[in-house]
Amino acid sequence: MTQELAALQTAARKLRIHSLRSTAEAGSGHPTSCLSAADLVSAIFFHSMRFDPTNPSQPGNDRFVLSKGHAAPVLYAALAEAGALPVEQLNTLRKFTSALEGHPTPRLPWVGAATGSLGQGLSVGVGMALNGKYLDQLNYRVYVLLGDGEIAEGGIWEAAAMASHYRLDNLVGIIDVNGLGQSQRTMYDHDVTTYQARFAAFGWHTRVIDGHNLEEILTALDEAQAVKDQPSMIVAKTLKGKGVSFLEDRDGWHGKPLKKGEELEKALQELPLNGNSGPLRVARPSPVVLPARSPAEAVFPTPSYQLGEKIATRAAYGTALAKLGTVNPLVVALDGDTKNSTFAEKFMAAHPQRYFESYIAEQNMVGAAVGLAACGKIPFVSTFAAFLTRAFDQIRMAAISGVSIKYAGSHCGVSIGEDGPSQMGLEDLAMMRAVPHSTVLYPSDAVSSERLVVAAAALKGATYIRTSRPATPVIYPNTEEFPIGGSKVLRSSESDHLTVVAAGVTLHEALAAYETLKAAGIGIRVIDAYSVKPIDAEGILRAAMQTRNTVLVVEDHYYDGGLGDAVLNAVAAHGVRAYKMAVTDVPRSGKPEELLDAYGINARRIVEKVKSI
Amino acid sequence: MTQELAALQTAARKLRIHSLRSTAEAGSGHPTSCLSAADLVSAIFFHSMRFDPTNPSQPGNDRFVLSKGHAAPVLYAALAEAGALPVEQLNTLRKFTSALEGHPTPRLPWVGAATGSLGQGLSVGVGMALNGKYLDQLNYRVYVLLGDGEIAEGGIWEAAAMASHYRLDNLVGIIDVNGLGQSQRTMYDHDVTTYQARFAAFGWHTRVIDGHNLEEILTALDEAQAVKDQPSMIVAKTLKGKGVSFLEDRDGWHGKPLKKGEELEKALQELPLNGNSGPLRVARPSPVVLPARSPAEAVFPTPSYQLGEKIATRAAYGTALAKLGTVNPLVVALDGDTKNSTFAEKFMAAHPQRYFESYIAEQNMVGAAVGLAACGKIPFVSTFAAFLTRAFDQIRMAAISGVSIKYAGSHCGVSIGEDGPSQMGLEDLAMMRAVPHSTVLYPSDAVSSERLVVAAAALKGATYIRTSRPATPVIYPNTEEFPIGGSKVLRSSESDHLTVVAAGVTLHEALAAYETLKAAGIGIRVIDAYSVKPIDAEGILRAAMQTRNTVLVVEDHYYDGGLGDAVLNAVAAHGVRAYKMAVTDVPRSGKPEELLDAYGINARRIVEKVKSI
Repeated sequence: MTQELAALQTAARKLRIHSLRSTAEAGSGHPTSCLSAADLVSAIFFHSMRFDPTNPSQPGNDRFVLSKGHAAPVLYAALAEAGALPVEQLNTLRKFTSALEGHPTPRLPWVGAATGSLGQGLSVGVGMALNGKYLDQLNYRVYVLLGDGEIAEGGIWEAAAMASHYRLDNLVGIIDVNGLGQSQRTMYDHDVTTYQARFAAFGWHTRVIDGHNLEEILTALDEAQAVKDQPSMIVAKTLKGKGVSFLEDRDGWHGKPLKKGEELEKALQELPLNGNSGPLRVARPSPVVLPARSPAEAVFPTPSYQLGEKIATRAAYGTALAKLGTVNPLVVALDGDTKNSTFAEKFMAAHPQRYFESYIAEQNMVGAAVGLAACGKIPFVSTFAAFLTRAFDQIRMAAISGVSIKYAGSHCGVSIGEDGPSQMGLEDLAMMRAVPHSTVLYPSDAVSSERLVVAAAALKGATYIRTSRPATPVIYPNTEEFPIGGSKVLRSSESDHLTVVAAGVTLHEALAAYETLKAAGIGIRVIDAYSVKPIDAEGILRAAMQTRNTVLVVEDHYYDGGLGDAVLNAVAAHGVRAYKMAVTDVPRSGKPEELLDAYGINARRIVEKVKSI
Repeated sequence: MTQELAALQTAARKLRIHSLRSTAEAGSGHPTSCLSAADLVSAIFFHSMRFDPTNPSQPGNDRFVLSKGHAAPVLYAALAEAGALPVEQLNTLRKFTSALEGHPTPRLPWVGAATGSLGQGLSVGVGMALNGKYLDQLNYRVYVLLGDGEIAEGGIWEAAAMASHYRLDNLVGIIDVNGLGQSQRTMYDHDVTTYQARFAAFGWHTRVIDGHNLEEILTALDEAQAVKDQPSMIVAKTLKGKGVSFLEDRDGWHGKPLKKGEELEKALQELPLNGNSGPLRVARPSPVVLPARSPAEAVFPTPSYQLGEKIATRAAYGTALAKLGTVNPLVVALDGDTKNSTFAEKFMAAHPQRYFESYIAEQNMVGAAVGLAACGKIPFVSTFAAFLTRAFDQIRMAAISGVSIKYAGSHCGVSIGEDGPSQMGLEDLAMMRAVPHSTVLYPSDAVSSERLVVAAAALKGATYIRTSRPATPVIYPNTEEFPIGGSKVLRSSESDHLTVVAAGVTLHEALAAYETLKAAGIGIRVIDAYSVKPIDAEGILRAAMQTRNTVLVVEDHYYDGGLGDAVLNAVAAHGVRAYKMAVTDVPRSGKPEELLDAYGINARRIVEKVKSI
């Protein structure tokens, strides 16, 4: 055996030992899922990858994504053996203060994106590979280690299609086919040829290997590096628990650590470290320095709309995004074959090299955006608001990753009309409000749309921009500012009976209701809550106090979780009386105005409600 | 040409005419997507399918799922020509009072499940096929018409794997490969061999045909009927707008109707109806009568737990589900390789023939449940609460379909501990509360878990049952009843300072806080809000009024959209002061008790908060 093979074999053994010890110490974890992958990880880290163990943010580093996140201990072990973190730190696995969490998160700087919800890592790898090949144009490679069970996830196949379509030859996937899921054998057990045939059919270069034969592993990894214009998938047949006789290929050991003491020692006896166990060398890339980029706020031309001019907020979104792209080279856009409806096509036309058509595959679109964001880009992801629900799990994980992504959902609410309920975003505010540290924006005219798109670029975490289908009049001068967490009082008098809070189409309905009520001698205050989260608690509370302690919220969204609940939270601790008007039934097809009336959120219904209160 | 071919060709022409007329009349819709599919639909409806046009609920009917829902007009046209609805009704397309919506919904009884969110129809078909082959054991066939653009959706490949794994030879898919998406050419344009290779790799019998050649279409459909132990996919090369020269294969015509008058007439001139246009015969199946089934409430044995006994609600869920399956033969269960964590394995052990392992593919799991529900079954779908977010779009569409499905999400909140945030369900209540007409249940002990599982079986629409990982003591006697929309006052006195509302693990923390505060001479009322939606507005309001108009909600969920917001809605219109304690940051790994304290929702934090209020 060559010296390298011996060293890699020793490394793999060390990874197994670390994985068994750290999970036993933690009293929980998935050691057997680490053991099946140990030889693969050893070869990837100490033969193929080039990275600077002292600098996780070196742009030239190869990237590693552990899609089977439950094997985190073997990743941490590899990083320790590479000198990226102290070996002693492995004993802090899963402890409250440790960066070594049960599943990888960016609390550890070597983790670009959190994993642990299976079937998402390949999309993250696609985003990182798109960045390397098309944006930063660096020659780093992206390695994604997958479990076999997660190949059942549709997101994997969305990523597989996108990767071959974009000819990502800098992307290498490795499937650890140990044949065992959490609760039983996987659908295909050790039938590696099925996985190979599927990835081949999806346009990947493929090779089947014995995942415990280092010579085969190195050959496959070297081959993958030579492939041009195609991503590569290495399908590795492995045994769960490999290396410890009483764990190997045994069901019932998923997610179970060994007991410290006798059980652990018995296993370690089967993993003696003989001779060569010196430090492992990691190949380093030639350092890269990326050009300085202008900040998101860089001199953005003021909007140029006419008061009263009718423009859909979705159209204003597209115009603003295209302008933003001109001043900020870090802005990229992805859309799922709806760009002519979301108007992301305006960005594509202006900045084709920074637009990635993601076709009808929202999960991968968001996952790829996570990868792009992890590489320092500012992704704007757009589709119908309704279809963003398709990627809720990816949006959830993006929040855990702490990356900053802008989601633009168009065609919100019943106001889209005849296309019917399947196309109406009516739960999007609830979904995006629930995301921790998210910002939720809901413009009502073209000027606020443009201002909020520009503001969004600079925000951290998840930012959601909700746009509408109907054309609505411009109500703000081009110079108007829209601070995040603010609101606008559009109508008020000394004797207002209550405050109506609205946004989007219902704001315009509220303004119409104001006129009708004014004619009837009833004054109402009208507030544009363009910032749904954070909500302008102070402003809304002040208005409520001045209007008989009463607030009425009107929104084109289902009853629970939307703007109404945001307002309730703002006034809840102060004993304000709050009422909500929202969509309480599954809508049907019809004209927008018919639907706004039928579901009780138009001017007429607002007038009725105000009079009844 | 044989007489049948001539009749089918005429039928196809009629479908094209109806599609053009009805969308022109509606002033919106997707006529060109209908024209590409017209020949296929003609052959499916008038050559292959057997159904009784007078009885949509005949169990022996073949099923048709229009996965490319935007082609709804061609489906309505086929039903009209088959005598299932009056031809005149086609002119009501997309009108507010019409059952012929922009995309198909069960408002039309011939539609088993709503479509229009692409990539979901094949999963619905899988559920209907599972029912036919394994449950009702009827020889009906399920035909699913797909668009080529939607094949990019991962859910398609989850369904494809499930269908071949379960050997669904009663499932026939047809892809209408017109090469044009909404905003541009699809990823593969007219490369039909790519689609064929992928479905073949996923274990399907496949055949490529010219989708406008009726002889080829009939041959392929007949062949599919003869295939055993495999689903069949027919890949049909078509032209969008086929039949009208100025629409054929033209980009920019997606979702655009023809203008009534000159434009429409010009098109219709190219579709003359010559001779044979007599009524079309539809083959009928031999009628089937399904055995009467016992109702969901049928004599269910009372729970048999001991007060104080420690049992996780997820374990009680599994026990209850297995017992429920014994009294109700309509109950079926699906789980995504987490059955040993959700305890769905108890149902599988007791009723293996009614359990469908869905592997790690949550989208298809829910989509298949929709198909099963559309066939009269009562599906209980379980996985980690966090992973139900993966299927939010399917859950959303299931609500539009009006089917009754029970979703059980385990491992909610930070109380799962060391596995970390990726495994914690912290936005599940927000997601499920937003679903229209949903019921959201959150048991705190084994008795309430069992009672609520039984109650869930009889509920309409979406029902969510949230279960927890840690073992919690039984606090209710086995005879206790838990009406939907109710709550339980567990602690109270004349002089309570405020009302604490909680559920799940935080209820037990609240009970501990009660003792501490009592010792300090501070009385609090403690309410178990096991029914989050509908919330017991009356009961909570009454308690609030009796406790200084003050409510404090404590929950193991993110801050927005959960139990707290449900309570705010209950008291909002009455000027009650409401406070919330919930998880406001992205959690990390750690011991459950460490995390409950760190994220501010344990007894100690409740005591602090109560004192501060």
